[in-house]
Amino acid sequence: MRLPAGTRDWLPAELERKRAVETALRDLFARRGYAEVQTPHFERFDVLASGLGAETAAAAFLFADRSGTQLALRPEMTTPIARLVSSRMRGAALPIRLCYLQPAFRYDEPQEGRMREFTQAGLELIGANGLESDAESLFTALEALDAVGLHDARVDINDVAIVESVLDGFAFAPEVRARAHAAIASRNLVALRAALQSAGRAEATTALVELAMLRGGAGVLETAAPLCANEAGRAALERLRGLLARAEALGYAGRVGIDLALLRDIAYYTGVVFEGYVEQAGFPICGGGRYDELLPRFGFAAGAVGWSLGVERVLSALERRAS
Amino acid sequence: MRLPAGTRDWLPAELERKRAVETALRDLFARRGYAEVQTPHFERFDVLASGLGAETAAAAFLFADRSGTQLALRPEMTTPIARLVSSRMRGAALPIRLCYLQPAFRYDEPQEGRMREFTQAGLELIGANGLESDAESLFTALEALDAVGLHDARVDINDVAIVESVLDGFAFAPEVRARAHAAIASRNLVALRAALQSAGRAEATTALVELAMLRGGAGVLETAAPLCANEAGRAALERLRGLLARAEALGYAGRVGIDLALLRDIAYYTGVVFEGYVEQAGFPICGGGRYDELLPRFGFAAGAVGWSLGVERVLSALERRAS
Repeated sequence: MRLPAGTRDWLPAELERKRAVETALRDLFARRGYAEVQTPHFERFDVLASGLGAETAAAAFLFADRSGTQLALRPEMTTPIARLVSSRMRGAALPIRLCYLQPAFRYDEPQEGRMREFTQAGLELIGANGLESDAESLFTALEALDAVGLHDARVDINDVAIVESVLDGFAFAPEVRARAHAAIASRNLVALRAALQSAGRAEATTALVELAMLRGGAGVLETAAPLCANEAGRAALERLRGLLARAEALGYAGRVGIDLALLRDIAYYTGVVFEGYVEQAGFPICGGGRYDELLPRFGFAAGAVGWSLGVERVLSALERRAS
Repeated sequence: MRLPAGTRDWLPAELERKRAVETALRDLFARRGYAEVQTPHFERFDVLASGLGAETAAAAFLFADRSGTQLALRPEMTTPIARLVSSRMRGAALPIRLCYLQPAFRYDEPQEGRMREFTQAGLELIGANGLESDAESLFTALEALDAVGLHDARVDINDVAIVESVLDGFAFAPEVRARAHAAIASRNLVALRAALQSAGRAEATTALVELAMLRGGAGVLETAAPLCANEAGRAALERLRGLLARAEALGYAGRVGIDLALLRDIAYYTGVVFEGYVEQAGFPICGGGRYDELLPRFGFAAGAVGWSLGVERVLSALERRAS
């Protein structure tokens, strides 16, 4: 009677704790004007893959229906919601504020904080661009961490345009650029040095290693400015500066920091990205960012920003604290 | 961007109506002392099939994980809960009262009231035998129909032992018995006559056609008594009489009727069965019954009775009423 790897039962007392977290989040979402939506647990694989990018799509559980259509259990909720909005809500007044509390499924190797079936709670702010919408998304994430009782959770922020701008300055061959990008994203300095060395571009090492290690407060922005090769990168640094100023004004100064190597592992992010952590947990509790190119892939020209939070990860962080 | 057949999106206003129904049910379940549990959306197919019987198992969406284990999206919740209780709650004091509000998945041909992804709400009373537990299950189903606003919904009741007892009296060959049983369950009098005729057992026609058509109040029990071949059937008639008397005492007299051909389409029922309907809907809103042999298949010698309700069917009945 074994369960499939990476899945679990919820006995009454366990489920009661999960429902309490879900209720706190649902209440917050409603207070902030986000309306809940739901999509099917499985979709056509080609539709999901068109939004997700290869790596996340590769983690989907696949099956075929009896007419041979390839289906997939959804590995996340942002792509299905982008599809939903693009097909059924394009007449709605912008911005659209949507939220969800749903299971998602990934064929990951089970480990702490990584189940094959897990519950995602999150929100999407669609059809809104600019710093105010980035800030709304970031600070609702901090409010959500507070709402579930993780008052000491910290959030790292970045903008994916900064790494792009720094890399632009070196005019790498595409495959060298891709290897350098991946090494920065995984903070693998050994791989970064090796990639540059073997490409005969060792002169880039100092700047890129510095970039991969830049974490902290507003001072980081000063250090990074000369590394940026163009206006896109400098504008991204200004966005981060604006978010830090708002964090201070909102009383979140001590809980928001910059991490210029934070690049998230889903391909659709185009601007600000962020991840929330608690001490001693080896995985982010929540994460998100701006994804201006996802809805256009479904034929709807609208930018968007959003985040999701792992309900099981919240429970595990709360449990570790209680023990 | 089509969705898979038999699935749907829930836009904000639609989901709000669904959540209202779910909240009303969850509140009722809590008031009646049923604790919510959750199981994985997919399980090992061999585990599910050992509880479900061939027909329901055949409707499961199947897929293999990357190590070759055959998995299935759960087609209902009673079997996973029987597995859960048998493996992780066998030390609990009996009876155990559990409830659930979860999606389930079946590869049915999509039609009104029949989605491939649907939401089941229900409860299971485990480790309790006898009329009081049958009555608790039946009348919580009526309370649930009231809680969601279907105050005119009616419930048909039966006991699967009655048909068995009547069939016992004819000492049919096994395949004739199976064909007659299926024809009664589907109320197909043409097939019933044909089965008896071709088996040279036309003398059984009058009694079995009468049985298949017997519906109504306590008078049905008088008519059926002489058709029963043994004590098991007569005891089942007495159980129905007891439930009718309780229905009257609880003010549900006009909403509970007997239907001796009601046999449910899942194989695990062993005693009282029931189904709830509203006028003009071509499908039951809820259904359940006693399943004393299911938990023993998972190694736990406990009888049980329970029911589930289709949340989408409730919504469709409420909508039809509003229009």
